[in-house]
Amino acid sequence: MMLNMTKLERMAELLRGHGADACVMGPSHDVEYLAGIKPFSDERFRGFYVLSDGRWFFICPELYYEEVREALGDKAHIYIWSDGDGPLGCFEKAQADYGLNGRIIAVNDGVRAVDLIDMKSFIKAEYVNEAMIFEELRLRKDEEEAQYMARAGEIADKTFAEIVKFIKPGVSEREIANKIKELLIELGGEELSFDPIVASGPNSSKPHYNDDKRIIEKRDLVVLDFGCRYKGYCSDTSRTVFIGEPTEEQKKVYEICLRATTEAKKAVREGITAEEVDKTARDIISKEGYGQYFINRAGHGIGLAVHEAPYIKSGNKQVLETGMCFSIEPGIYIPGKFGMRVEDIVMVDGEGSRVFNNSDRNMTIL
Amino acid sequence: MMLNMTKLERMAELLRGHGADACVMGPSHDVEYLAGIKPFSDERFRGFYVLSDGRWFFICPELYYEEVREALGDKAHIYIWSDGDGPLGCFEKAQADYGLNGRIIAVNDGVRAVDLIDMKSFIKAEYVNEAMIFEELRLRKDEEEAQYMARAGEIADKTFAEIVKFIKPGVSEREIANKIKELLIELGGEELSFDPIVASGPNSSKPHYNDDKRIIEKRDLVVLDFGCRYKGYCSDTSRTVFIGEPTEEQKKVYEICLRATTEAKKAVREGITAEEVDKTARDIISKEGYGQYFINRAGHGIGLAVHEAPYIKSGNKQVLETGMCFSIEPGIYIPGKFGMRVEDIVMVDGEGSRVFNNSDRNMTIL
Repeated sequence: MMLNMTKLERMAELLRGHGADACVMGPSHDVEYLAGIKPFSDERFRGFYVLSDGRWFFICPELYYEEVREALGDKAHIYIWSDGDGPLGCFEKAQADYGLNGRIIAVNDGVRAVDLIDMKSFIKAEYVNEAMIFEELRLRKDEEEAQYMARAGEIADKTFAEIVKFIKPGVSEREIANKIKELLIELGGEELSFDPIVASGPNSSKPHYNDDKRIIEKRDLVVLDFGCRYKGYCSDTSRTVFIGEPTEEQKKVYEICLRATTEAKKAVREGITAEEVDKTARDIISKEGYGQYFINRAGHGIGLAVHEAPYIKSGNKQVLETGMCFSIEPGIYIPGKFGMRVEDIVMVDGEGSRVFNNSDRNMTIL
Repeated sequence: MMLNMTKLERMAELLRGHGADACVMGPSHDVEYLAGIKPFSDERFRGFYVLSDGRWFFICPELYYEEVREALGDKAHIYIWSDGDGPLGCFEKAQADYGLNGRIIAVNDGVRAVDLIDMKSFIKAEYVNEAMIFEELRLRKDEEEAQYMARAGEIADKTFAEIVKFIKPGVSEREIANKIKELLIELGGEELSFDPIVASGPNSSKPHYNDDKRIIEKRDLVVLDFGCRYKGYCSDTSRTVFIGEPTEEQKKVYEICLRATTEAKKAVREGITAEEVDKTARDIISKEGYGQYFINRAGHGIGLAVHEAPYIKSGNKQVLETGMCFSIEPGIYIPGKFGMRVEDIVMVDGEGSRVFNNSDRNMTIL
């Protein structure tokens, strides 16, 4: 991938539309989307600056110069700093060349606060957090992107079909997580989209559990949450499996979770708002008396980033449009007891949606 | 791991020593070190605030509340925000409770610029980038930490011994990288400390190359750079191997790189400065006429983070003390042609050092 001039012009247009004079983007999927430079964040500041008039420049550590030059082309304006000098001189020069003092600069989520503090001493602009600018940039997936997302979902589905053969009492959460990692790559994933979550027994009540030390026991339930990337695009799916016969309460809660996911997926279409999708799931869970245990949002957008807009949550009145991709993952988490969810990725497609996950959603008893 | 009161008191002391009234730490190894909460960064703001008088509080999304409560204990003051409301109300309450307006708050590298912009609207403090406060906190490793580092290094060494059997013409960089990942975990690593770098042929001239698409050819050289974590602590080692007989120039450059690494390691002891270690390596490479191709620093500190203080670079007059751990990795990178390095981790130990990598450094011809 290389610098995409159409996408770059769209970025400038979004800046004008939001009343910003420029933006600064740190290592992030925004830069990956615009210029094909994969995010790799370390203590060395890198910034891609786009101005609302269409001009742009890059501040780059010497160490990454060759790659950045290759991606941006020979005509790109790149300020280079060495490990010995640090980036402050580049801020100073960029201000002199582009006159950014007093202007409004939108900051993306790849910039670190410590770098913003340093930048501000030399580029005395008004820095704003206008997340919508960056969200809109990557919000609607085209057919090529949709196919990458579908393929990433397929690999995750195949991984689930294999991993259930591996889960049994005596195996540790970590061993299962490692096996999932191997499978995702072996089955065609380029890399993980995030570290797999394997939360068993009481750990399952923590939606983002990542301690991984517990050994699976008889009568456990296990929440599996994992995904990979294909051509940069992410999958992310969760399934809950049972080691031996579940309790009556677990059966009931599973049925509610699955129904909430299924009904929320059915609700997805152009013109509905993000919060209406959340509400569809939330109403089902609340009506059954578990509303207080549905502590997270119903879903998150996904694409080059595993979490991006649109966020499927109460209060988000964003109207869904064809091409928007997100997870549907309502869950019930009873502290100290157990938790569960069933999670799929969908894409809005006219009057309905395309579903990128299709692994078994029936109650899996191992 | 749980909240460590001794380390926390040391944090408050460091704040007082640097004239700061408080600090805010986002997901980071600083929080891992103080409270055993592993870094996991997403779009939800989490902040651990420590005041110079020893008081402290945490701002936490509802989703992570259980884990944070478990780590910090029942008496911890935790502000919780929901996905629906966002964190702004927590900033407002924290300001009301702790009176932080107008105070000096040091920001660590785990806070995102976008969150700092939001925080600043409610906590109108002077935010400063005083990296030394956080660097000092974790700078000197004790014997327990040293043993974890040594074990992580050993696993990387064993991985190198195995991976050389796998590298041959026709195999892709990505396949080698995936095999390295598998080996690091199989041989006892908890997780990767970073994505392995496999840079072959002309790609080797980019020190942080991560494209991974090229297929290995006869007469290539391949730079391998990888590591894992053990009990949270990182290894990081590089070796350069040759597919068939190297050219005379490559032999010469390899000898220079190896000598630079070896001599720089010999120079390590208490009382020498970081830049003197860099200079030892740099002088060797410059004297041979390759100075312009040694574009990075000679090394970086390592511990819970794969890159941390002390940075072994020109201009860094930091005096080395027992317990400081860092890489020694001088390299020669000739754009479009080839690059190489030999990298080991060392720990300052009185009059000398302990070396945590010991895999074969002789010219490896496959």
